[in-house]
Amino acid sequence: MTQALIFDVFGTCVDWRSSVARAVAQALPGVDALAFADAWRGEYQPAMERIRAGGRGYVALDDLHLENLHRVAERFGVTAPDTLNAAWERLDPWPDVVPGLTALRQRHILAPCSNGSIVLMTRLARHARLPWDCILGAEIARDYKPKPEVYLASCAALRLHPSAVMMVAAHNDDLVAARAVGLRTAFVTRATEHGPGQTTDLTPADDWDIVAPDFIALAQRLT
Amino acid sequence: MTQALIFDVFGTCVDWRSSVARAVAQALPGVDALAFADAWRGEYQPAMERIRAGGRGYVALDDLHLENLHRVAERFGVTAPDTLNAAWERLDPWPDVVPGLTALRQRHILAPCSNGSIVLMTRLARHARLPWDCILGAEIARDYKPKPEVYLASCAALRLHPSAVMMVAAHNDDLVAARAVGLRTAFVTRATEHGPGQTTDLTPADDWDIVAPDFIALAQRLT
Repeated sequence: MTQALIFDVFGTCVDWRSSVARAVAQALPGVDALAFADAWRGEYQPAMERIRAGGRGYVALDDLHLENLHRVAERFGVTAPDTLNAAWERLDPWPDVVPGLTALRQRHILAPCSNGSIVLMTRLARHARLPWDCILGAEIARDYKPKPEVYLASCAALRLHPSAVMMVAAHNDDLVAARAVGLRTAFVTRATEHGPGQTTDLTPADDWDIVAPDFIALAQRLT
Repeated sequence: MTQALIFDVFGTCVDWRSSVARAVAQALPGVDALAFADAWRGEYQPAMERIRAGGRGYVALDDLHLENLHRVAERFGVTAPDTLNAAWERLDPWPDVVPGLTALRQRHILAPCSNGSIVLMTRLARHARLPWDCILGAEIARDYKPKPEVYLASCAALRLHPSAVMMVAAHNDDLVAARAVGLRTAFVTRATEHGPGQTTDLTPADDWDIVAPDFIALAQRLT
């Protein structure tokens, strides 16, 4: 019996690309805002990889985002204000997310299992009105997904066996890692996370426990 | 400027004594339920003290509560079911708590800074409808209040200087410890936490930043 659902957030719950581009357009007029957002997000995996590989101790994603902001700004030939980093706290949810989570919360504990820090997830939840019961994920484990420790630390914080926890994500690799340590899995399609030309994660890459077009359908499948 | 409020929970937000006694009366008919609740709570500080002093590694309060339950049951000459331990997840809030927190949440990040574990605070919040933004406290620090680490780890998770965080408690010793590491302090009177004959924490023992009769008054003071 699934008692808790834990969620990927960037891309799965919120539309980071449009929201970051909106903030970039406001802070850096004249810059190609979508290209800047893509480039900023492009620095995300390399920055975490050094930590995952052990070459750097745990540093919160807030700090990585800020380092990456200035690296990308330099590449674009502009100087970005530090305050632009708060763009990641003001990402809009996909339209099905709040009603879907609200329905799911009737019977399940809900928490993000994101690479975002506790405070980043907290401020984002306030902005996007995501009705989490608690905040789990990278900071609890002091490591980054898809390292198994992050999923296992989230289950441990809930004092639940991994088989009682379902990972929900729009990214197949997140679910591969969650299933490998015993969690149940739900794939939700986000076909425009990377814009209209997206080529990745358009379909489930394995027989995930649930495949749903959005969170409302996910809630229907779980009740 | 206070950006976040962190709360003691047992006694400050919820009436543990009546709620635990209610669960005891149901599970152990014939036992003096209020005396049992007091005895169970009486084992709370000694159990944590061994961990605070370093004689035992961090063990979640859920486990301490279970050990204490069986110790107290033996003293009362009964056998308690393990399921009675969930009484601590079903404590009722004082009547001002939900409206007060709802008002405070408009302008402040709200989180428990309790000795309860993440999942205990999560399940309790679902029961009592406490609108937390995230769960902080002992498990984040892997130590127990009033050790300074617990307050400081909670501020660190919020990425806030302690002076931007206010500790709210009905217990003077909790506020002494929070102030000692730089947090702001609010004392809320809970004159019947220990029943009608309560003799402790009836009045503020220092010049706390705010002294309020309940959470609704606290919200008014902060706006």
